Order: sequence, then C-alpha cells, then structure tokens
Amino acid sequence: MTTKLSLGLDFGTESVRAILVDLDGNEIGIATASYKHGQITETLPTTGEKLPPNFAFQHPQDWLDQAAQTVIEVLKSSGVSPENIIGIGVDFTSCTMLPAKSDGTPLCLLNEYASNMFAWPKLWKHHGAIKQTERMNELAIARNEDWLSRYGGVIGLEWFFPKVLETLEADADIYNATDIWIEAGDWFVWQLVGASKKFNKNDIPRSTCQAGYKALWNSTTGYPSTDYFAALDSRMANVVADKVPGKLLAPGELAGQLSESMAKTFGLKPGTPVASCIIDAHSGVPGVGAAEPGSLVMVMGTSSCHMLNSTQEQNVPGVAGVVDGGILPGYFGYETGQAAVGDAFAWLRNLLGHSDFKQLDKSAQEVGIGAGGVLCMDWFNGCRTPLMDGSLTGSFKGLTMHHHQGHVFRSILEASAFGFRWILDVLRDNGVDVTRLVATGGLPHHNPLLMQIYADVVGETIEVHPSTQGPAVGAAMLGANAAGSSVTGFDNMLELVKSMSSQQSPTKPIAHNLENHKAYEVLYNNYRSFADSLRS
Amino acid sequence: MTTKLSLGLDFGTESVRAILVDLDGNEIGIATASYKHGQITETLPTTGEKLPPNFAFQHPQDWLDQAAQTVIEVLKSSGVSPENIIGIGVDFTSCTMLPAKSDGTPLCLLNEYASNMFAWPKLWKHHGAIKQTERMNELAIARNEDWLSRYGGVIGLEWFFPKVLETLEADADIYNATDIWIEAGDWFVWQLVGASKKFNKNDIPRSTCQAGYKALWNSTTGYPSTDYFAALDSRMANVVADKVPGKLLAPGELAGQLSESMAKTFGLKPGTPVASCIIDAHSGVPGVGAAEPGSLVMVMGTSSCHMLNSTQEQNVPGVAGVVDGGILPGYFGYETGQAAVGDAFAWLRNLLGHSDFKQLDKSAQEVGIGAGGVLCMDWFNGCRTPLMDGSLTGSFKGLTMHHHQGHVFRSILEASAFGFRWILDVLRDNGVDVTRLVATGGLPHHNPLLMQIYADVVGETIEVHPSTQGPAVGAAMLGANAAGSSVTGFDNMLELVKSMSSQQSPTKPIAHNLENHKAYEVLYNNYRSFADSLRS
Repeated sequence: MTTKLSLGLDFGTESVRAILVDLDGNEIGIATASYKHGQITETLPTTGEKLPPNFAFQHPQDWLDQAAQTVIEVLKSSGVSPENIIGIGVDFTSCTMLPAKSDGTPLCLLNEYASNMFAWPKLWKHHGAIKQTERMNELAIARNEDWLSRYGGVIGLEWFFPKVLETLEADADIYNATDIWIEAGDWFVWQLVGASKKFNKNDIPRSTCQAGYKALWNSTTGYPSTDYFAALDSRMANVVADKVPGKLLAPGELAGQLSESMAKTFGLKPGTPVASCIIDAHSGVPGVGAAEPGSLVMVMGTSSCHMLNSTQEQNVPGVAGVVDGGILPGYFGYETGQAAVGDAFAWLRNLLGHSDFKQLDKSAQEVGIGAGGVLCMDWFNGCRTPLMDGSLTGSFKGLTMHHHQGHVFRSILEASAFGFRWILDVLRDNGVDVTRLVATGGLPHHNPLLMQIYADVVGETIEVHPSTQGPAVGAAMLGANAAGSSVTGFDNMLELVKSMSSQQSPTKPIAHNLENHKAYEVLYNNYRSFADSLRS
Repeated sequence: MTTKLSLGLDFGTESVRAILVDLDGNEIGIATASYKHGQITETLPTTGEKLPPNFAFQHPQDWLDQAAQTVIEVLKSSGVSPENIIGIGVDFTSCTMLPAKSDGTPLCLLNEYASNMFAWPKLWKHHGAIKQTERMNELAIARNEDWLSRYGGVIGLEWFFPKVLETLEADADIYNATDIWIEAGDWFVWQLVGASKKFNKNDIPRSTCQAGYKALWNSTTGYPSTDYFAALDSRMANVVADKVPGKLLAPGELAGQLSESMAKTFGLKPGTPVASCIIDAHSGVPGVGAAEPGSLVMVMGTSSCHMLNSTQEQNVPGVAGVVDGGILPGYFGYETGQAAVGDAFAWLRNLLGHSDFKQLDKSAQEVGIGAGGVLCMDWFNGCRTPLMDGSLTGSFKGLTMHHHQGHVFRSILEASAFGFRWILDVLRDNGVDVTRLVATGGLPHHNPLLMQIYADVVGETIEVHPSTQGPAVGAAMLGANAAGSSVTGFDNMLELVKSMSSQQSPTKPIAHNLENHKAYEVLYNNYRSFADSLRS
C-alpha cells in the first residue's frame, strides 16, 4: 500500500516552510526558506523610496518562489514521489493582504503600479491605518452595529477593511485599479488552483477563518452592510460586492485542484486537492492536537496568538474575535493575541547592542524576579488583547543607574508574561473556560527562562509542545481533509486531527513555583497600574 | 618680583585635579589623577562584601595619595617653586562625609572597623538613607521647623544628617565609635592644617558652604535643635555638640597653616595658608568669574549643580538651599541641581553597548527634535530640584520597534534639558531674577549637541565658559584670599575674583533657534505631564 502524505505550507513573517506528514502523524520531511525580500519596512524595492515608520510590506513573488523552493527541497530530501501527496494545506499570517487584478496578478507586479507603495501587499503588522481604524470604530459604535460585539467591541488596526480604507484615502487610483482585495493566504490558494482570466471571480476561495477574524464576516450575516461602508466613504459602498467576491470555505474544505502550471512550478502532481487556508496561529490548534474545548494554544513567535475552541459563545471585551467554526467546525473559535513578543525581544536585543540572546538570557536569569525594580510595558507594537489599540507604545520605568542590561531584558520577558496573564484573566472573568495551556512556536523551545516566567506569573503549568511545527502540521491536516474521507478513511476532521497528532512526543510540562507566583502577584498588579497610568 | 601663585585642589567623583593660578588669572599648570579605588559601588575593598545597590563610597587614602601625586606633578611640570605658593584652596564634592576618630583618622582605616561598610566615607550620591530622610522630613514638618523653608521644604536624601542617622540605625557600634562626623572637604583641610590628638576639636575647620547647604546650618540659628534630634532618635540628641564640633568659616577664610608633615607629603612649604573649603559646584561661581547677582552658573558633569548669587532672599519650593554668604560674602547663594546628567548619559551609553559617545551623538543628532516620539524622564538618580525626592526613578515611554539607539539616546539629552528648564521656571516663578546662563564643567565642552538642545529648550543664549577648570580656579581664588590682603593687594574677595578671572578667554555663546524652541515647548509640556503621571 502506498504511503499517503499531506503537504503543509506554513507562511510566516520571515520565511515559509514545507512539511510532509502521513496520516498516522509521522513527520516525513521538512524544509524552510527565508523570503528573498524579507519584511519590507525601510524602502520600496522598486524605487528605494523611504517608507513611513509604521509601514510593513511583503513581496508576493517571494511567496511563490520560496514556497516552490521548499517543496522541491522537501520532496528531494525525503525521497517522496508527488504521487503520494494526497492534499495540500496552507496557513498564512493574517491579515496580510493585497490588491490584485481579476486574473490574480498583484498590482505591485505590474509596471504601471510597481513604484506606488500602496500597490504592495500589506503585512499583518503594517500600522498605516490608525486614523481609518478609529473612524471605523466610531462609526460602528454610532450605528450600533451588531457585529462589533463579536470582536470585543473594537475593530483592530491590523485588519482587512481598515487597510482597504487606508489605500482608498491615500491613493484612490490604486483603489480604483484594484479588482480584487484579498488575504495573502487566499491569494496563494487561488494561485494554486488556477488564477487566470477564465477563473470565475465568485469561485475565488476565501477562508472563513481569515474572513471571520479579520474581515468582520459572519456565517449568518455576512460582511458589514453597504450602508455601513457607504457611511464610511461613499466610494466604498459596494466594496464587498465589487472587490471582495469569492466562495467562503471553512479551513480544510476543498478549494480546488492544483493547476497544471503550478504543479510544474512546485514539482507536484496536477489535480492534487488543495484545502481552503487558515490563519497561521489558528493552524496551531489542530497542529498540536489540542483541539478539545478549553485548551488554549499559545502560538509564540514574533507575535503571540492564543487560540481556543469553546462550546460557549461569549462576547468578551477586547477579545479579537469569536467565530463560529473559525478554527474547527462545531466550536466557537476564540482568538486573542499579543502584538510584540519575539519581535520585541529581538528589537531590544539589537537596541542593547547584541547580535544573539545568549548573554542577555544569562544575565536576565541572574537578576531574578522583579528585574531589580524595572517595569516594562510591552506595547512596542501596540496592544492587541485586551485593549485592541495599535497606537499604544512601549515603556520602561523604575530605572536607576544601578541597572544593567540584564534588568532591562528581564523586564521585557516579565512584561510579556504579565500581558498574557491579563488576557487569561479577561477570558475567565467573562465566563470562558480555560483548563489547559499549550505553548508552541519558536520561542517556547528556545527560551526556557521565558516559559518559566510565564508559568510562574500565571501560577499554572504550561505544556510546551515538542514540535516547533505546530502550524505547519495543522496545515498538512487541512490538506489531508481536503482529499476527502474516501482517501483518508476518516469520517470527520476531529478524528483526522487525533490520528495525525498521535505520533507527537508528549508535551513538556513547565510547572509553576508557588513562591515565585506569589512574588509575581504584586508585580502583576504594578503592571496593571502602569498600564492604567500610560492610558490616562 | 616673585610671581605669586595660588594652588587650587578640586576633588571630583572620579578624580582630583591640582591647578596653579596667578593673581592676574593666568593658569600656570594643571595635573589630574584618578582615584585608585574610583567610586566604590560594587564591593567593599577590604572584604569583597557586595554592597547594596544604592550604596556609594570613596577611599579616604585616595584623597591624600592622589592629591599629593597631582601637586608634586604640577609643581614639576610647571617648574614652580613651593616658595611662590601663597595659599591653598580646596573644593570637594558634597555631601561626601565620613566618621573619624578625634585625631582625624577615618574609621575605615582602622583594622577594628575596616571590614564594616558603615565605617566608610559615603559619597555624595550614596542613597542608603531613603527611610531616614523620609522620617527627618516628616518630623521637621510635624514640628514646623523654621529652617525647613530655606531648603524648599525638603531635606535631601544625600545630605549630612540623613547619612548620620542611617549609620546610627544600621550599626550603632559604628555611630558610637565615631568621635567626629565630618564633610570630606573639611576633613581634608583639617588634615592639611595638622589633624592630630593635640588639635582642639573646636578648631576643626568647617565650611559654612557645606554646613549651610548640606547640614541644615544657618549663620543666625546654627544647626537644628537638640529637641529635634532627640525626637528623631534619643541616642542622637547631642549629635551636634558631641560629634560635629568645629569652627565655622566662610569659603576662603583662613583655616590654618600647612603642617610640617603634610608639607613634606605634598612637596610644599610648611606654614602655607590654607582656606576653608567650598562645595565643588559652588566653586564654579567665582571660578568662571560670574559672581554678579543674576548669573546662573551651570556646573555640568556627572551631575549638574546650578549656583546663583542674588540680592533677594526667597524661599523657593524645591530649591535645595538658600544660604546667606554660602557662595560669596554679601549675597544669598542659591543652589539647585540635577542628580544625574553625565553619569546618566554614560550609564545609558553602557546599557546600549557602547564604549564611547561618538556614534550615539551622531545618531542622536540625526533623529532630530522629539526623538521620534521617545520621551525620557531623567530621574535615574532621583530628582533633586525641584522635587527633592531621591526615591524617584527614570523612565522611557513612547517606544516602538521602529526606534533605534539614536532615538533613545537623544531622548535622555532632551530630558536633561527639560529638567533644567523646569528649574529655571521654578526660580523665576518665585521671584528670583535669572538674567544670564553660564555653563561650565566637562560636559558643555564635549557635547555641543547637548548645549544646543539646552539653549533651544530654554529659548535663551547659554554662554559656555572656555575653561573646563571652573571649580579648580575657584578653589585657587579661595587659597589666594586666605593669604590675606597684605599678600594679594586686594581689599576684598570680589576684587580678587575679578582679577583672577580676567585672563579667561571670552565665553562662547550658544544662541537658541526660535523654531526649535517652539517645537520644544510642546515636548516640554509632555515632559511635565509625564513627570506628573509617574508621581501619581
């Protein structure tokens, strides 16, 4: 019997990885490639024009080129035949989005628009839409829009429509030239299944995950009304019908078959089933096999996202999104997040003149709980949950000339843990059960000190998932699901998740120390007061 | 006719310098030596015991050894004979103070006490007496002590009696073993004029400058009453009579003649007149020839002190001291200060991983006014004027991951200028005329960017005094005055100051830019709001 494998493609902020997983959960091969253009935050690649400080783009050709590179590499290194691949799944950062023509060509790849910064894909962390987000929030509150409560009462700065409105206001020509506004993950799947002039625009695959968490979409009521958009800007009244067409599919539903030309580019078999995509963080929930209600999956990387399936639908103030079936069918998916985690640690490391974390981690360990009185507010990229305010900024206080780098660096680790504790408190205070904490992503494996601080601050055990490939494995699960039950032999996706996560090594529990937890209680209250004082 | 020279000895935080100046103001020679033990802030030299984080000591043997070294060197390098030296003046950091035996031996130099940290001289910046200062303030307010208003209503953390009380509470044995509590400057002069068993304790020279600004002394009412001290701690009731004996002399008054043994140590002539000492910062006022009322002399180094002679006696909230004749006879001397200036810049430089300022200054210049939104509170060693609160700490806010070292470094320079602007406002708002700003010390010469920021922030021209030796020259003026009018030919000290500062190069005016000043007005208000929020 031929081994059945699924291919997961995991698109991060800096790189893409390809993973091959069989139906019993064995990881057969993996390959990673950094995007040629990385994050584009300083200058536009075409013109060298300096970007405003809060702008962040990516290059769409990188997504295709580096993905193809990893797929070719993983097939070669694992000796797997394309025939064995039963499906392809994709997870992607979000809301990373772009303007495209009706045939799928990104505007920035056309000579006519390449020198215009608004033609470029906006990376999730692009913060150019501060004013637009404010206006969208004010209007939604004034109009008493029902959908607002599902997002904790606040539209996020990094979401889909603020980014669209930003472009409309900054450069209406680009807005007008755009046929299709689309999430990068959906765009990539569209490319795989044959984006072209002939492709019916109403068949463009769009994930309910991306749409539900980032584009104000809901399974019952759809997107916000034309009235809302018209009140925002008359030119935008029909944005949904005109520029956001497509077919909404839950993650893992069949989006289409791999096209001839894409099969050639990737060295895969034409016709291979392709699944509707998922947000990278959300992919970690099935990816680490923690899909049961009450398990909070912490995907910790440049930023952190926390995902939770629940049987309860609660509107929690400041929680970024509650989407019915947003992660897996049959559950309400909750998403919360911290906007700057590994990214902020790396920024501070650079600021302190270091090229690696070794010495900083060591001295942060040595200075002990409380960082010698230095208190940090970790809003270096705004605050996602619970305040949903991208305009907030970071801070350090309590500094004296007796403090050294170890104190300052430890303070940012502690602040990150305090920020997570705040999120947990908000969920539970609003009636959402959280019974298990599972950490995954790059950070938990590289930084045991950080995880101990997190466990001590929350006063609970945190299980670190042994695979750093949670989201990638989750993507592979979606690909297998898209192949259908006749191929996989599984009746539903929960069974598939169970099997495909069964070979994972057991999670590593980080127990908390009770005495440390007590000491952190006081410091956590100081952190909360500090947050209040910075907002007053 | 033999040239008449005066020797000035200038004791700083890191080093001592010796200067030779003639009566026409020509600088004949100069020599500097760093203290062998530097600032003692980490471990006790005798035992290696780790010091608490806010402790700072000096080694009394360094004062003698390194001073002798510089005097021998300056005599040799300038080819001057000891016969030509008509007087010796001393300026010293303050309140740097120590416990000694009745013969002048510092307790820390006796085997019996050397291993006890409280036997060591406390450097001005030693912050071990936080609780004691609080209690002294509360008691003074409760008892409605008259003298409190002369100090802006607040006793400073770095002053004389808080440091005494700290030792009494921490180690009564050391307190009991102490015969004489004394300022380091007075102790050094006492050594020069023959400290010994035979020396009458009521003749120990004590400067009205140190006593007036740091030990709550006043020419009319003396020290605080035994009732006040008894209420503080019954064991301390008679501290003044028992342990602070001496003869109070204004800076420049004759303290005595150089002893035989000290003359040998320093390579000087026995019997040379020695003047009563002055605080290093205050020495800058005559030193730069800006003794006229209304001229604010900014002595900018590790910390900043601002000195002003005035004809008006105003009690200004938060001003560290108003002393009749505290700087020069016939004027009310005002002292204000910023606790962390060059020291804080160096601390931040180290924190950011640099060994010199070159690159940081360059990028701070490039980022321009407002430091890209980063706002710093420069309380890294507490706040001296106007808040007089050593327990306050430093802070940075407005930080995002787009900020780099240049933003952070510029923010501390701007904060320092805002802190100075605040002091100027407080003086003028309370009716003290300030008509001229003269900057001296090490920083103004090494950091033109800093001085431009200061000028732009206050919106006035700042004159930078060409000599970096202001305090040292001032000390030499005191030495000349001690020689007497029959030797100098000057009837009073103001004439002497005029002549001995007449050969200085003209000051270099740093004019302010009006547009920059307007931009800083907004930022200054933000700084004041930030200060309020950190205290609430």
